[in-house]
Amino acid sequence: MIPILRSKPVPSAASNRAGRRAFLKLAAAAGGAALVRGAPASAGEGDAAPPGEPDWSLSLGPGVVEHPYGQPSEFEKDVIRRNVPWLTADRVSSVSFTPLQDLSGIVTPNGLFFERHHAGIPAVDPAEHRLLIHGLVERPLVLTMADIERFPATSRVHFIECPANGGMEWRAAQLNSLQFTHGMLGCAEWTGVKLSTLLEEVGLKRDAKWVLAEGSDGAHMVRSLPLEKCLDDCLVVYAQNGEALRPEQGYPLRLLVPGWEGNVNVKWLRRLKVGDQPWMSRWETAKYTDLMPDGTARGFTWVLDAKSVITFPCPEKPLRGAGRYEIRGLAWTGNGTIRQVDVSLDGGVNWQHARLHEPVLPKALTRFSFDWRWDGKPALLESRAIDSTGYVQPTIAELRRVRGTNSVYHNNSIQTWQVKADGSVFDVQLA
Amino acid sequence: MIPILRSKPVPSAASNRAGRRAFLKLAAAAGGAALVRGAPASAGEGDAAPPGEPDWSLSLGPGVVEHPYGQPSEFEKDVIRRNVPWLTADRVSSVSFTPLQDLSGIVTPNGLFFERHHAGIPAVDPAEHRLLIHGLVERPLVLTMADIERFPATSRVHFIECPANGGMEWRAAQLNSLQFTHGMLGCAEWTGVKLSTLLEEVGLKRDAKWVLAEGSDGAHMVRSLPLEKCLDDCLVVYAQNGEALRPEQGYPLRLLVPGWEGNVNVKWLRRLKVGDQPWMSRWETAKYTDLMPDGTARGFTWVLDAKSVITFPCPEKPLRGAGRYEIRGLAWTGNGTIRQVDVSLDGGVNWQHARLHEPVLPKALTRFSFDWRWDGKPALLESRAIDSTGYVQPTIAELRRVRGTNSVYHNNSIQTWQVKADGSVFDVQLA
Repeated sequence: MIPILRSKPVPSAASNRAGRRAFLKLAAAAGGAALVRGAPASAGEGDAAPPGEPDWSLSLGPGVVEHPYGQPSEFEKDVIRRNVPWLTADRVSSVSFTPLQDLSGIVTPNGLFFERHHAGIPAVDPAEHRLLIHGLVERPLVLTMADIERFPATSRVHFIECPANGGMEWRAAQLNSLQFTHGMLGCAEWTGVKLSTLLEEVGLKRDAKWVLAEGSDGAHMVRSLPLEKCLDDCLVVYAQNGEALRPEQGYPLRLLVPGWEGNVNVKWLRRLKVGDQPWMSRWETAKYTDLMPDGTARGFTWVLDAKSVITFPCPEKPLRGAGRYEIRGLAWTGNGTIRQVDVSLDGGVNWQHARLHEPVLPKALTRFSFDWRWDGKPALLESRAIDSTGYVQPTIAELRRVRGTNSVYHNNSIQTWQVKADGSVFDVQLA
Repeated sequence: MIPILRSKPVPSAASNRAGRRAFLKLAAAAGGAALVRGAPASAGEGDAAPPGEPDWSLSLGPGVVEHPYGQPSEFEKDVIRRNVPWLTADRVSSVSFTPLQDLSGIVTPNGLFFERHHAGIPAVDPAEHRLLIHGLVERPLVLTMADIERFPATSRVHFIECPANGGMEWRAAQLNSLQFTHGMLGCAEWTGVKLSTLLEEVGLKRDAKWVLAEGSDGAHMVRSLPLEKCLDDCLVVYAQNGEALRPEQGYPLRLLVPGWEGNVNVKWLRRLKVGDQPWMSRWETAKYTDLMPDGTARGFTWVLDAKSVITFPCPEKPLRGAGRYEIRGLAWTGNGTIRQVDVSLDGGVNWQHARLHEPVLPKALTRFSFDWRWDGKPALLESRAIDSTGYVQPTIAELRRVRGTNSVYHNNSIQTWQVKADGSVFDVQLA
């Protein structure tokens, strides 16, 4: 009574080079009609299998007992974080990149979320971990993880981006990889306690103006943050995408500073000190400052300005023949929300509005898309984000005019992907 | 210049039984002040370590090279899906439950998302997988995964719940576990193609009224769905929380039927057939129907009505002494959005509004919370969801009056947690 398909799925006309809709109608006339006649074309995988039925339709797979904590399919083994061996001096002071070319939506899964560490990834015992809050406060406190989880919990979706994302592009290194040009970026639902709640608990003294955050790994990283930001929207988080933070994301506790450069989102957080001036630590003087053309350095350039990138097509995901495509990408800003994304097919000469996908959340990744019928000729694809403050994502030439090429950080420029006639995609910079 | 904490973090006063705020102020006067004097209390873990500094602050952890696909901390090894060995006849026809007691926010991580399978978990090769769309259509089609990913992509956050979630409670089994009473539930950001787009591509014939969805695993599960729902909000999805579906979630392709019982979200999807009447398959007659007191059965009871549960405290997460707590929970509905959640501390005699946490999305999990100062006396905690249609979550007694106790499915009743004076929490049913 119930029709069970017994014929082997026949190959579709995927190699056809016509446009999507046209191609699919062709396939319907050929493969589809053939299937309705029930004629399997090729041999099965196993001798014992009826012709045309794949093994997985004729056997029992393993049960869940073997998978108490699930893993990706073996067929996805190349979807991983990757690092650039020459980028840092040692693997214990390294960075790995999110494979944005393989991801959908706005949530970055925890196993693929980029991470940067300066003394390896410590294995912190949550039962031993403590958070000290002291300095210009009325009631200094030492909190256990159980204490922290008892405070009212807040969850929010925010991106984190390393300010060095795209840093290799300042001097036009051509990495030819979306993963390496933009992969120090991820977005998750974070859960924790509002930093304002903790500061209210300890009671701020009248001179309080700055907060020092310190990590408990071997690097003991410390960053100074203005009190206004701390009281605005910072969180002390213990969960990411529903579960406990992963070790490389600061387990069991990290600071979340929405929309500000990744480095200030201090991981393995063990100490918050309240003071009346910034501490001028190594991490905000020798590092994470922007060397300008005149030899001076911009400091405390925390905010990540509006930025976007096309994630399909990209060097890792070329086009497969002329026809209809959906150009896809991500946009984000440290200032409010993404208001608009424009797409150019000709290297920034002409621009058209992309479609923004809901939900558009503040300081979170926003998906955009743009329908395109590719004629098979070379093209220069770009995207340009505009945020709710009216800020427009600049070109690399515009950024270089102001900041020169000494800098490593805060390259939020427009990315150009060169599409060649064979569909391959390359990382280029326009003059 | 930069003050680095060298003293071992001292134990906080976590065992103090006073309320949170009061307790924390006590701790401030004791531990906090002690710390400011810089007096470490106990010995370090290693002989070579300076007194008071944990190992992880004095050593280099491993780099990311070892973690191309990240895993949870070793300290989280008990946060896993679990199954009930006696619940199904065999492990290849089994179910595992999400550890809701350990999760935050509304995203369920892919590794912990509950799953139900009827012939084990097949290892489907995406390069070989095909989706056939045929029946009452103008242009039957066979699609590869590459074909499907080329269509415009849509991402949406939706819950999936097995209709047997809470099924053991119809006859008042006391499982004493949130994971086992409510853990056949998860919520994710799903990405795929609108089913309406695929049906438009093949062209519906005039008599089209139903769609059959078939899985490619050994169970060849088939379910009939009315065309109206298919054209409304169903998706054919290939990604969950940003990455490819996990094998146990239907890799590489599943049907997503927002707000409808989990079983119709057919996994390992290989076929969609359009017809003019339902197919009356085993999976919608012998199974997944509701046996009523008079011996008849309700069929096609797809929609999941409004439901909620308190996730803290719960049997796995008891209270630790009188004082301030945040009661936390989840609410969801297959009809629109959650409009209101009420909490009762006395088994449903009195109700107070809980706070709903943003974002409140249609057919998605919604977080709620309620501030509570527990006096240390026994209590009966309940939550009650109301959705945007005005539907109010019923008690188990109300449900039994209508549906009896023969059923396995669609128990969306109010859960009662009994809190004892020692803080322990038990699964009870009120008369």
